[in-house]
Amino acid sequence: MTLPRDIEMLDHAFVLAEHGRGRTCPNPFVGCVIADADGTMVGEGWTQPAGGSHAEVVALAMAGDRARGGTAWVTLEPCNHHGRTPPCSQALLDAGIARLVYALSDPNPVAIGGGTMLAEAGVEVVPDAAVDRARQQHEIFLHGIATGRPFVILKTATSLDGRIADHTGTSQWITGPATRARGHELRREVDAVLVGSATALADDPSLTVRLPGWDGPQPRRVVLDRRGRTEGADLKLFTDGLAPTTVLDSPDPAAALATLWELGVHSVLVEGGAGVAGAFVAAGLVDRYVLHLGNVLLGEGLGALSTRVALPDAPRLRLVSAELSGDDVVLTAYPRTP
Amino acid sequence: MTLPRDIEMLDHAFVLAEHGRGRTCPNPFVGCVIADADGTMVGEGWTQPAGGSHAEVVALAMAGDRARGGTAWVTLEPCNHHGRTPPCSQALLDAGIARLVYALSDPNPVAIGGGTMLAEAGVEVVPDAAVDRARQQHEIFLHGIATGRPFVILKTATSLDGRIADHTGTSQWITGPATRARGHELRREVDAVLVGSATALADDPSLTVRLPGWDGPQPRRVVLDRRGRTEGADLKLFTDGLAPTTVLDSPDPAAALATLWELGVHSVLVEGGAGVAGAFVAAGLVDRYVLHLGNVLLGEGLGALSTRVALPDAPRLRLVSAELSGDDVVLTAYPRTP
Repeated sequence: MTLPRDIEMLDHAFVLAEHGRGRTCPNPFVGCVIADADGTMVGEGWTQPAGGSHAEVVALAMAGDRARGGTAWVTLEPCNHHGRTPPCSQALLDAGIARLVYALSDPNPVAIGGGTMLAEAGVEVVPDAAVDRARQQHEIFLHGIATGRPFVILKTATSLDGRIADHTGTSQWITGPATRARGHELRREVDAVLVGSATALADDPSLTVRLPGWDGPQPRRVVLDRRGRTEGADLKLFTDGLAPTTVLDSPDPAAALATLWELGVHSVLVEGGAGVAGAFVAAGLVDRYVLHLGNVLLGEGLGALSTRVALPDAPRLRLVSAELSGDDVVLTAYPRTP
Repeated sequence: MTLPRDIEMLDHAFVLAEHGRGRTCPNPFVGCVIADADGTMVGEGWTQPAGGSHAEVVALAMAGDRARGGTAWVTLEPCNHHGRTPPCSQALLDAGIARLVYALSDPNPVAIGGGTMLAEAGVEVVPDAAVDRARQQHEIFLHGIATGRPFVILKTATSLDGRIADHTGTSQWITGPATRARGHELRREVDAVLVGSATALADDPSLTVRLPGWDGPQPRRVVLDRRGRTEGADLKLFTDGLAPTTVLDSPDPAAALATLWELGVHSVLVEGGAGVAGAFVAAGLVDRYVLHLGNVLLGEGLGALSTRVALPDAPRLRLVSAELSGDDVVLTAYPRTP
């Protein structure tokens, strides 16, 4: 049974988990809190970069002997398998945890069973205590398990009237520094950043995460270039050595995603231009939309999506937030599931 | 000196004032609250439709003798002149009000002096107690006094990527019912609704306020039609008799506004299409922007503004709110003053 305190402790675990966002692929970024038998918090942890300790193990190490008879709150069901680390279920049992609360059952077929194993060993187990929030936080991980393809975030940066550049092609800067920093936060979240060849050639972008203090991995850069237009071009993507760059000659977004999945890419940020963005939208392959709207009206200019769809056939999105961001606006939306 | 209770009572007066929005032109829509000498609220009122009683007089009538020795809170300085009604300053004095708090001094040269008159008569007067909020609520009235031209609201209804219609011209419906109802609320706020001849001919709109229970005035309909394209056309605007319709042949937004001002129009809602909207934006004659974004992406289609401006020259807006509205988004912005 879920107690009010469980929600509070899981809240804390969700916040802890965020420390791992963008650093733990292919593992989910999990948070864990441990209290002793009297309810005093004695351990906390989050998943370390892939190959490192899981959240539960970090929190147990902090708690030490005080974990015996205590409670563990975890944002995802503890794993039950030997991957690069031993199973967390066994670690919790060995530490003497008497009660386990987790937000969501692990849908990963190779990892499941941690809850059941602990329940059978006599631990009081409260499963699925915060399903909606856990699904939100783990959306990239869960999408990969469910579909076997990368989670795709489409980011556009337009004027208030939907232009990615003015009629001369100028796009720097439609949005302000606070919103551009959010663009870097999105890059930090993903395994790869993808652009079309026209954008690569026109803007010569580096596509790296540039945020103060960021020491995590840089996303792979991906260029969709079916005509070999970037071949031999002197572009930062090919010369700066800041992250691997992959050029794909497939014109098909689905095929490109399949190739990237094979490379271990579980999440892709599509940054444009209009041709690539339109192709992903038209293919129904965008899993989250992040629309940055700068505080300006440009009138005739370059549209964000070089596709066309009749209004009655246009897929509807589910808008989840509309926020002011510095002097701009940021909208977040998801595909509307039938 | 302003007391915490003054802010609370003015808050209530601002809410009361809203009952008059769209009904009192050319007068501002004012709210008033009165408490007796012990601080018990004994009267409240808002400005009645033009020619009817001002807010203070309504509140005093409710309070009766209990106003003697009491306090009045008003969203605007009480008028001091005989218009269609006697001066409110005298009414407050006659009723024996001992203390007067008002949110903002009246900038209208023919009405000013109410605060001074009452102070000289021995009333404790607290002027300008909530200037920012009063300026916001009275923005249409204040704009008219300051500039001698109507306040212009531009409303657009676009897809998330800025299209007012798909590539076939279909625009019904990009936004959902909750957001379309907000469009009617904007019409209720203004004296006139303005469209171009192409929109009048293509959509045959009625441009009326259609809201449950609305019994206030309908805005004047205005068509900008420099080539006489709507002459003799069988349009609802000309035949339904629901509100007056004015056709203007000026190609110049400023000239059109001057003509409307002479007709007693103090506020105009520009609803499009792209030609008219672009002309008002290009002329710098939009005073408030209200952008309705439906939850859909259309790609190539009709843009909202048939003007063009280079990014470095594009005027920046001041975004004040970004809200979810039903399944859509509503953004509100103002011109950025230097």
